[in-house]
Amino acid sequence: MPTPTPPTDCAVRFDPARVQRYIDDLGAIGVHPEGGLYRGLYTPAWAAAMDRMETWLRELGLTTRRDAVGNLFGRLAGTESARVVLSGSHVDTVRQGGKYDGALGAIAAMLAISALGEACGPPRKTLEVYVICEEEGSRFPANFWGSRAVTGQIRPEEPDRIRDADGVTLAEAMRAQGLDPAAIPSARRDDLDAFVELHIEQGRLLEEGGYHLGVVETITGLRHLRVHVTGRQDHAGTTPMDLRRDALAGAAEMIARLTKAAAAMGRPAVATAGMIAAQPGAINIVPRAAQFTVDTRHPDPARRRALVAEIEGILQEVAARRGLGLQVEQLADHEPTPMAPAIRQVLAAAADAEGLRWLALPSGAGHDSQILAPHVPTALLFVPSRDGRSHCPEEFTPVEQIVPGLRVLARALHALAY
Amino acid sequence: MPTPTPPTDCAVRFDPARVQRYIDDLGAIGVHPEGGLYRGLYTPAWAAAMDRMETWLRELGLTTRRDAVGNLFGRLAGTESARVVLSGSHVDTVRQGGKYDGALGAIAAMLAISALGEACGPPRKTLEVYVICEEEGSRFPANFWGSRAVTGQIRPEEPDRIRDADGVTLAEAMRAQGLDPAAIPSARRDDLDAFVELHIEQGRLLEEGGYHLGVVETITGLRHLRVHVTGRQDHAGTTPMDLRRDALAGAAEMIARLTKAAAAMGRPAVATAGMIAAQPGAINIVPRAAQFTVDTRHPDPARRRALVAEIEGILQEVAARRGLGLQVEQLADHEPTPMAPAIRQVLAAAADAEGLRWLALPSGAGHDSQILAPHVPTALLFVPSRDGRSHCPEEFTPVEQIVPGLRVLARALHALAY
Repeated sequence: MPTPTPPTDCAVRFDPARVQRYIDDLGAIGVHPEGGLYRGLYTPAWAAAMDRMETWLRELGLTTRRDAVGNLFGRLAGTESARVVLSGSHVDTVRQGGKYDGALGAIAAMLAISALGEACGPPRKTLEVYVICEEEGSRFPANFWGSRAVTGQIRPEEPDRIRDADGVTLAEAMRAQGLDPAAIPSARRDDLDAFVELHIEQGRLLEEGGYHLGVVETITGLRHLRVHVTGRQDHAGTTPMDLRRDALAGAAEMIARLTKAAAAMGRPAVATAGMIAAQPGAINIVPRAAQFTVDTRHPDPARRRALVAEIEGILQEVAARRGLGLQVEQLADHEPTPMAPAIRQVLAAAADAEGLRWLALPSGAGHDSQILAPHVPTALLFVPSRDGRSHCPEEFTPVEQIVPGLRVLARALHALAY
Repeated sequence: MPTPTPPTDCAVRFDPARVQRYIDDLGAIGVHPEGGLYRGLYTPAWAAAMDRMETWLRELGLTTRRDAVGNLFGRLAGTESARVVLSGSHVDTVRQGGKYDGALGAIAAMLAISALGEACGPPRKTLEVYVICEEEGSRFPANFWGSRAVTGQIRPEEPDRIRDADGVTLAEAMRAQGLDPAAIPSARRDDLDAFVELHIEQGRLLEEGGYHLGVVETITGLRHLRVHVTGRQDHAGTTPMDLRRDALAGAAEMIARLTKAAAAMGRPAVATAGMIAAQPGAINIVPRAAQFTVDTRHPDPARRRALVAEIEGILQEVAARRGLGLQVEQLADHEPTPMAPAIRQVLAAAADAEGLRWLALPSGAGHDSQILAPHVPTALLFVPSRDGRSHCPEEFTPVEQIVPGLRVLARALHALAY
């Protein structure tokens, strides 16, 4: 492990206009007709973005390589070790997403590593830009496709089983891009010493606190539930309140109380009901059934369990008291993922050396870093997000808030590889 | 006005099997492929049901007539007066409705008046069966079409303005049934002395209290609202609870509190949220907007106003505290309609004379009686509903619970017309 406070011993500078140009050029690929971007995995827009990144990596003097799933690497070979310090993020986007989520981390790694090579010569350990093919799960229900390939976590049946909304399998989409599903196991890497991902925060903590950067301590744990409430359909005019089993009134009380419980637990606990429906859905009929989803997260494993238990207790108490049927379907469950203390310390020291205000914080969103972390010492660096907006065309970070992140990333990679 | 406790001076008896046969025969017209019935206004099923009623009325010795909107009357002429004592209900149904709501009141009036004519001879005042063409508003958004025609409440532009889901205007649908929209004003009647409607309760009060019959004091007042809540769309993982403006969490608190407020006011106050939606509707996105409907009713004008004011106060308080936008759209507003005390007294005396347990109660549902009541002394008689079910295929009243209603109806009509 490197020493905690390594000074950069060669000057690395970033021209804001040049940084912005890369962001805008990549952000012009995959423009969605209704606003924002869409670069779904293995779509033409995705392929064009990957090609553009490869062209740039070569122009900047890095050696490029694609793996079996289409991840792209740009290599700056080390003089003493073929062990790799990796940095990057994903280039796919959600539908009508923005040009910073993911893409900024790939561009940042490219600019930092190429700048280091130019200013400081070849590193001791090998540095690689990692342009991750997919993270969002927006075309195929297969999140973290790129990072799961590199860590050997893709199950053999996935390529033929998983389909997009048009019925195309992942395997078919791979072949259309000249990729061989049978070769997926070859994407696994065992030569990685560290992974550093730069990403927009997608929240408001840095902006509201006036911080330049965030150093993530833990990527939050998450549980997704679909709650089915069943009552009895009744005439809304003739059925006294005390004789009702109103599924929607019950669901409403559940949502009001579970969101209140998350708020009472305090930051960073969150609980969200994002989808709701009621049947039969007539103004003058007491609903016989209602369904809603719950997304609840906490980066501390014990508090996450406590929050989930409290929410499930609320669901059961409300259902029992109101005489309602309750079925709780678990859609996803991820334990929190701590980032590697040693790499976090390198980021913190780099930020201090640059004289920047930084915040240690949890990530409330999921990231490729959580897939890499169990296999490779990993850390995640946040730059601010304007008004916390993300996954929307309004997603924005001014370049003046990006350049400090680039400087810290370069300084940290220098500390890790030189 | 008649004397309050008139004995029936001629024997009127009803054979349960014959009553059931009429219910079942009419209930076989308009069977919906997914269960229950659908007899939308001016549909073939509706026309077949009206024709069947007319055939029966003639067979039973009554003189039939259709008016401009298709209401059907079966007349037993009075010896002393052409002033009319009217009884009946509607034959249209909601989609997948039952065979008792409305239809039973038309059959009951037909059996009671024809039985009176047979057993007691011609009445002093004229008795008429009123087979109402439409009440439910299920095909066209035009509730109470039949009773509004008779009371002169159809506005001239309605036939050409109001369309069904397929875009057919009311005027077009009338012409297809051989009716002339221009003749609607001729349907107005000024010769009515009383209206008595027999209907299923569509609630549970009679069944739970072990009553044979209900005599309605007031038809409830109603307000229908559509509530639009607007917040801010955010990432469900990265946005702390205390920075959110979650439209669905706000809507859920509103629904939980407004239903609790109605319950706290006690019977017969009711409030129902029957429809709900949230946008954008993704599991991991804090909803930017939510909409729900409110149906709230109370038969006492002052308490109805108090309930509506309390609900509107809840909506405003929750929206203000949570920083949410609020728009409250009023879809309907009806004052409570009291039934005529003199006619209620005739029904009560008839029930007492039959030795039946009856309950004075409000109607939580709307009925043609509320349209007639401001113009003609009107009363509404309820028979029980099994488990309170209505507007569904399960709607049911055993014939043993219908015959007492027929006896009381016949006795009351005798008191009013003989």
